[in-house]
Amino acid sequence: MNSFGRIFRVHIFGESHGNGVGICIDGCPEGIDLSPDDFTSDLSRRKSGARGTTPRTESDMPEILSGIYRGYTTGAPITILFRNENTRSSDYERFTVMPRPGHADFSGYKKFNGFNDPRGGGHFSGRVTLGIVSAGVIAKKIIAPVNIEARLVEVGGSADIQSKIEEALAANDSVGGLIRCRISGLPAGIGNPFFDSIESVLAHILFSIPGVKGVEFGAGFAAAGMRGSEHNDALLSSTGKTVTNNAGGINGGISNGNDITVNIAVKPTSSIGVEQKTFNFETQKTDILQVKGRHDACIALRIPVIAEAASAIALADLMFAKK
Amino acid sequence: MNSFGRIFRVHIFGESHGNGVGICIDGCPEGIDLSPDDFTSDLSRRKSGARGTTPRTESDMPEILSGIYRGYTTGAPITILFRNENTRSSDYERFTVMPRPGHADFSGYKKFNGFNDPRGGGHFSGRVTLGIVSAGVIAKKIIAPVNIEARLVEVGGSADIQSKIEEALAANDSVGGLIRCRISGLPAGIGNPFFDSIESVLAHILFSIPGVKGVEFGAGFAAAGMRGSEHNDALLSSTGKTVTNNAGGINGGISNGNDITVNIAVKPTSSIGVEQKTFNFETQKTDILQVKGRHDACIALRIPVIAEAASAIALADLMFAKK
Amino acid sequence: MNSFGRIFRVHIFGESHGNGVGICIDGCPEGIDLSPDDFTSDLSRRKSGARGTTPRTESDMPEILSGIYRGYTTGAPITILFRNENTRSSDYERFTVMPRPGHADFSGYKKFNGFNDPRGGGHFSGRVTLGIVSAGVIAKKIIAPVNIEARLVEVGGSADIQSKIEEALAANDSVGGLIRCRISGLPAGIGNPFFDSIESVLAHILFSIPGVKGVEFGAGFAAAGMRGSEHNDALLSSTGKTVTNNAGGINGGISNGNDITVNIAVKPTSSIGVEQKTFNFETQKTDILQVKGRHDACIALRIPVIAEAASAIALADLMFAKK
Amino acid sequence: MNSFGRIFRVHIFGESHGNGVGICIDGCPEGIDLSPDDFTSDLSRRKSGARGTTPRTESDMPEILSGIYRGYTTGAPITILFRNENTRSSDYERFTVMPRPGHADFSGYKKFNGFNDPRGGGHFSGRVTLGIVSAGVIAKKIIAPVNIEARLVEVGGSADIQSKIEEALAANDSVGGLIRCRISGLPAGIGNPFFDSIESVLAHILFSIPGVKGVEFGAGFAAAGMRGSEHNDALLSSTGKTVTNNAGGINGGISNGNDITVNIAVKPTSSIGVEQKTFNFETQKTDILQVKGRHDACIALRIPVIAEAASAIALADLMFAKK
Repeated sequence: MNSFGRIFRVHIFGESHGNGVGICIDGCPEGIDLSPDDFTSDLSRRKSGARGTTPRTESDMPEILSGIYRGYTTGAPITILFRNENTRSSDYERFTVMPRPGHADFSGYKKFNGFNDPRGGGHFSGRVTLGIVSAGVIAKKIIAPVNIEARLVEVGGSADIQSKIEEALAANDSVGGLIRCRISGLPAGIGNPFFDSIESVLAHILFSIPGVKGVEFGAGFAAAGMRGSEHNDALLSSTGKTVTNNAGGINGGISNGNDITVNIAVKPTSSIGVEQKTFNFETQKTDILQVKGRHDACIALRIPVIAEAASAIALADLMFAKK
Repeated sequence: MNSFGRIFRVHIFGESHGNGVGICIDGCPEGIDLSPDDFTSDLSRRKSGARGTTPRTESDMPEILSGIYRGYTTGAPITILFRNENTRSSDYERFTVMPRPGHADFSGYKKFNGFNDPRGGGHFSGRVTLGIVSAGVIAKKIIAPVNIEARLVEVGGSADIQSKIEEALAANDSVGGLIRCRISGLPAGIGNPFFDSIESVLAHILFSIPGVKGVEFGAGFAAAGMRGSEHNDALLSSTGKTVTNNAGGINGGISNGNDITVNIAVKPTSSIGVEQKTFNFETQKTDILQVKGRHDACIALRIPVIAEAASAIALADLMFAKK
Repeated sequence: MNSFGRIFRVHIFGESHGNGVGICIDGCPEGIDLSPDDFTSDLSRRKSGARGTTPRTESDMPEILSGIYRGYTTGAPITILFRNENTRSSDYERFTVMPRPGHADFSGYKKFNGFNDPRGGGHFSGRVTLGIVSAGVIAKKIIAPVNIEARLVEVGGSADIQSKIEEALAANDSVGGLIRCRISGLPAGIGNPFFDSIESVLAHILFSIPGVKGVEFGAGFAAAGMRGSEHNDALLSSTGKTVTNNAGGINGGISNGNDITVNIAVKPTSSIGVEQKTFNFETQKTDILQVKGRHDACIALRIPVIAEAASAIALADLMFAKK
Repeated sequence: MNSFGRIFRVHIFGESHGNGVGICIDGCPEGIDLSPDDFTSDLSRRKSGARGTTPRTESDMPEILSGIYRGYTTGAPITILFRNENTRSSDYERFTVMPRPGHADFSGYKKFNGFNDPRGGGHFSGRVTLGIVSAGVIAKKIIAPVNIEARLVEVGGSADIQSKIEEALAANDSVGGLIRCRISGLPAGIGNPFFDSIESVLAHILFSIPGVKGVEFGAGFAAAGMRGSEHNDALLSSTGKTVTNNAGGINGGISNGNDITVNIAVKPTSSIGVEQKTFNFETQKTDILQVKGRHDACIALRIPVIAEAASAIALADLMFAKK
């Protein structure tokens, strides 16, 4: 379903080329000061504009439909709407016949029996993350002084991010990236054993971001190659601070007082300018497809702020559950 | 919470050295034939016994408390109990004072304010996965002919599994491992965009298995280093079959008819025989701890069947949601 | 929370005098034809206008923000927004100081620590039921040919409805009413024992309608005075049809093939023109309050269509769960 | 499903003549002292023995399988099991062929396609309420000093309870009853507008008790016949105390500081000794059925403690949600 959370709960909706996208946030406590300006910084971080992002520009102005009164949250559901303005839908009709490699054209058709809105990816669009980013703005206020910082650390396997993007652009191609997220200030004792471990809950929401294909905590996949004597983090003080942080700040699903560290693998943008093979359902033969339209060369550029928002939403929920 | 699923739902309970561990399974359809023998194979795969697993032996006999009548599920909740028999609790008392590195001794204390049962790890114990494995037996019947196969492919960074385990044993140490899980036969169209993507739901339950620190789908972390032209899987036929499977069988959170492929990183067992530094809360100084007791040298040896069960539980739920 | 349902799920939002009210509907299957005209009939039944309803008039035009494409549901969340237009908020400020008897002024203040929007009742307003009615329109399509019909059968304890309303109006007072709801065509076998019995799920959503203070099924409260030989409904045929229907079509929480019959008690509108005593939090003394503004004399007049919608939403969810 | 609650959550399981019945309680905070003796009083109130209750006697000894350590809750799930001992299953086989009027024999067969356990009503049995009563014992500790008191106030429409039961017994018949439940000490501000109103949540769980067919709050159904000037409760003081309590302590779904008052209508026991007509699915004709076995003449006698437990469970959940 399109909901996440047990106590602090978000419900997303909308399509890329429909009336708009948005989010309904339930379980937000009353009394949090909130103005339209609070959204500006994170929404602009998510926005396109940098080299390697799509030329489609949208104002991305949030309209708060409910839940705010005189500058404070009321405790009632907060609904935030982003109208779509700059839509060009003519390009998308034929992808039902010739599904684009890497996209949900085929799987989405099977899921929704052909009734889904194909324009701009419809409800599969990354544009739906606007709601997640705006809920993240509120969640960050709730969890403060816990601080979340995500940044793009590698593109195409290299720390030389800009050159890898330029190379991809020059080749009419796209490229993947690696994001590192660090959560600091989280007290020990948040999370749960088993199903609602911090790893489970964070991975759940991080994997819901389009393009994310891998999530690891602390040493992550490297831990599979390590000895226990090497991986175990020795406890140094009564605050829980450890010498190393191979556990990524989590033992038994619960925060141990060290920074939570997460790595997130983002695949290359599926839409590329170069010709690709795909199946043509009309001719029932393999065919050549060239995707035009306006796309990001490196979707990973825009994911850090979304990953922060997703993490903040998950942590707000986990921290309420602790109380 | 200790529940997973929306339609096919499981609730786990129990402690390592208490009366027992178990699971309550709700939302299982009526009319599935089920006998105690059905559990034997998967429970014995999970069991200790091989080189590198703990010498603690338990009969692990499932007692079905409810939900089965004349060899068939009734549609009412199925509760399965495993009594604890071979418990030796004397070793665990002091870990509240001197938390074991890598364990939840400290984080669990903070979470439960010292009221949690410390014996054998209490509710944090891997023994709680007995319930997950037994629910997996039922879930596998539900999703048939979908087939799930997980196996240990690397230990300590090498495919020479047995030698790495012997080396760790010889060093009184432990070692991590990498598990590969393949789900075949899943029809296209299962899963959801965003929050209940296949990746989200599978990662959620896989990360709830103690010791799992990384999850990736298809090319996973390697995708972060790839170009779109390289990562995109070209569609070959109307069934959805693609040339490559870098997406791991999932586009837009939804199955595309190819095998779902997941890699799971398991950290080395936290309990090791070698001396380790930790903080002593009594003396308020750093101290030396040596963990005795009976432990696995490579917990990853026992995880494949648990990963299969977890995946089956998640898929049963997702497949019901599709209907 | 502001959500209802497990599979067919609705999330309501909005305030009486804010930007608008609305609903987000998740889990609605794709392929249901839906046009703005489909909402006209039920929305106009809910609307004011008849003698005894408030003179506040709103166009109540639904704006479908998402989830519909080319006249059909897409399977993505459907969000419907109703803008507020005819608001007059000056009257409501003082009710925080002098809470109106029968209203949520005092309890809501305690709940939300004074941060709730007091204008027109804010999120407590009956106006929020616009979303429920519009989700009911969709739910009715889903459960067809199951038919739900609710009607006002008594006002002020008498079947002479119009005269009771005129009397109340003449006295500047309000009056309660009794609603009878009949669900026909529901197949046997829907519902659950215990927590998700039809009675539980229907009562849950019916009691969420502002003003509802009693719900009974079949013989209901009269059953408390009956003998078993009198109350038991004798089975007549293999379809489940019974001679009497004291059970209201439900045995063990599950439909038995007869009509579901529910009675719903609606209290008199809390806002009345006559003077009332209340506590003045400024003077800390008992004081006299006269409520002006625009109100219904008999809120029960507008509840039948809301009760139908609520029942349809609950049944859609229960019927999906059966599959 | 067989679960109730969002934060304090209970999962029930079991059958009347199977291995046992029980409950798994999740979300219970750590540090609550709990001994087997704590259950004695409420379990014995639920037990049979009084005139008018079934002669089937069970020891009803709770076995705590998990979640308690050294006399305190640990924060992990608490599972409580009641073994079945005194079962006589021979009588129940034929009710699939000749469904008993008032029972779930027919509706349950349709729901579970004939796979449900028919012995003693299987999972439909009132015996499953043992788990609810034992969870109620814990919930009452959580919500203290909030006090819940339910009592049987009428049987067969009369306050002369014992004589009505004797009359029913003499006639081989059964009789219904009315239960009044009063919740005192609940602070103002608990509950929610709309879907999780106190009325919604309490009615949900109260209607899950087998035999309950009506629930009303405060003046309840009488409110449908009242004027607003008569029904509105005038506020007297800053604590929220009102002159009358027609609202049953709830405005806008939220507690107002007065006692919560609920009336609960319980139908007569369905099993009666007198002959009844029913349909014979073998002969496909109407037939005469005489139900033997051991039954309550007035199930309402045993419901007060179950209603208290159900209310306590619901309130524990609502009070946690407020925090």
